[in-house]
Amino acid sequence: MGLAIIAPNKSAEEINAWTGVFKEINPTLDLQVFPDIKDKEAVEVVVLWQHPKGILHDFPNLRLVCSMGSGVDHIMADYYPENVPVTRIVDPRLTFSMTNYVVMGVLNFHRQILRYIKDNQSKTWDMSQPEIPVSVGVMGVGELGGDVLDKVAGLGFPVVGYGNSPKSSFRHPYYYGNQLQDFLNEVNLVVCLLPLTPKTVGFLNKDFFKKCQKGTYLINVARGKHLLEEDLIPAINEGFISGALLDVFQKEPLPAAHPFWEHDKITVTPHIASITNHKAAAPQIMENYNNLMAGKPLINQISKTQGY
Amino acid sequence: MGLAIIAPNKSAEEINAWTGVFKEINPTLDLQVFPDIKDKEAVEVVVLWQHPKGILHDFPNLRLVCSMGSGVDHIMADYYPENVPVTRIVDPRLTFSMTNYVVMGVLNFHRQILRYIKDNQSKTWDMSQPEIPVSVGVMGVGELGGDVLDKVAGLGFPVVGYGNSPKSSFRHPYYYGNQLQDFLNEVNLVVCLLPLTPKTVGFLNKDFFKKCQKGTYLINVARGKHLLEEDLIPAINEGFISGALLDVFQKEPLPAAHPFWEHDKITVTPHIASITNHKAAAPQIMENYNNLMAGKPLINQISKTQGY
Repeated sequence: MGLAIIAPNKSAEEINAWTGVFKEINPTLDLQVFPDIKDKEAVEVVVLWQHPKGILHDFPNLRLVCSMGSGVDHIMADYYPENVPVTRIVDPRLTFSMTNYVVMGVLNFHRQILRYIKDNQSKTWDMSQPEIPVSVGVMGVGELGGDVLDKVAGLGFPVVGYGNSPKSSFRHPYYYGNQLQDFLNEVNLVVCLLPLTPKTVGFLNKDFFKKCQKGTYLINVARGKHLLEEDLIPAINEGFISGALLDVFQKEPLPAAHPFWEHDKITVTPHIASITNHKAAAPQIMENYNNLMAGKPLINQISKTQGY
Repeated sequence: MGLAIIAPNKSAEEINAWTGVFKEINPTLDLQVFPDIKDKEAVEVVVLWQHPKGILHDFPNLRLVCSMGSGVDHIMADYYPENVPVTRIVDPRLTFSMTNYVVMGVLNFHRQILRYIKDNQSKTWDMSQPEIPVSVGVMGVGELGGDVLDKVAGLGFPVVGYGNSPKSSFRHPYYYGNQLQDFLNEVNLVVCLLPLTPKTVGFLNKDFFKKCQKGTYLINVARGKHLLEEDLIPAINEGFISGALLDVFQKEPLPAAHPFWEHDKITVTPHIASITNHKAAAPQIMENYNNLMAGKPLINQISKTQGY
């Protein structure tokens, strides 16, 4: 049962790290790496990251499509065979990184680190208002969003979750669907951890910002396409948004001419909030490879109707 | 039973906030505020913050000395009547602030926020090494240090505590006394939350830094006098210390000529890591006032032999 890696934007070093783990687990694995895929008919499992559009048409015998990361939007947004399962990576190390990045953003807003860094430059000793009271809203309450809510609540902050669908029981206050305004009324810091689906593309737009409480802080660690970038600076100028910590962008690397780089209320990080660790991720793919061979249920399979 | 507040460096506004709470709890309280203390013999309880040296000699009928904050070093370092109990403030809100300030410092070191802020200025997209592995050591494991250890461990980081005396059981790995080198061998981020006592003045000095693992990050949120300030920049230059987040200083406000302001590895904040909230603190003092009148045990009384 042949496996192919199709991840044209990953470095040779990174691809070697993945193939190294695959071969360690299964030394006889029939493994091909794009663009050197000679025997397309042999490929039954594809492992994808930002693959060329339409390429899955080339593989007539596909039985499993694996994302190399937590997101599957790159797969959902393209052709894939209807009856083939799609899996993602669930990596505790990825959760650790993502949560700690977001907690850093929450605390830096709460304790105003950017203000003090400026005060250092001007040698200003200003003890006034050392804390902004923060109530944290997390949009997207899956594996990652749920952990962010747990950790932020554990530090003593009020938290609220927001998602697409109702939940019969959730361990934190929760709103969904058309209750967005109710959710935003309760928070002054919004974390976007939504999956990218046709419903959530451009979710962070002018209309969204107008629903926010004045002075709300934004953290986007999901996907660049969640944010209509041209709407953010006007929302800051109008006071709906007081600032933003952004890790993902419509176009990456963020172009040098982009106004986010120099805006004093916006902090840019280069898509490092959470990076999938091949040591944790590659074995999950091999586990599903073995499950498929043995006719066992797959792990981390996504729901195609929900898109995550 | 008369009470006097002696806190010459606090603003009139702040003093009014305290007297407001005192009078709300006990409208008939015999209350005097320094420097307008006419009847010294009537004073049986003093409430102190950075009081003039030797002033307690003036009160012949003292029965209780209360610190207005968590620290009592300002009292221990001066004359106070030997048989009079000394109390401090234990404020959950103070713990919340202190812990979240320290966690912010830990995460900013771990995720290198200062690097990304610089990269924003130069429009640099650098995804390399997005995380520094961090093992956190907390010196001083009382109310505040213990909470810092709990919260940092809860976020998934290895933690170790260090204190003055042995502990028969402690919920985290713990070293004490002359085991300082063992403690420092295990950590690359050190938080100073020691009480200020004759034993800990100047504890953070050249010899201490040389015991640190190369590249250790320092957070001092205890007292300015814990740090021999002239030893820090040499320790950074020698590589023992990779940077520091400092909230307290030998002289506050930090003088404009001080080299810490402009050092690119040092972040200065103006003694705001944790500010005692008079709404939480003043009732504790009134509770002890009432306990004293009723002959009941005091709360938050300190051990004079330990000095905290």
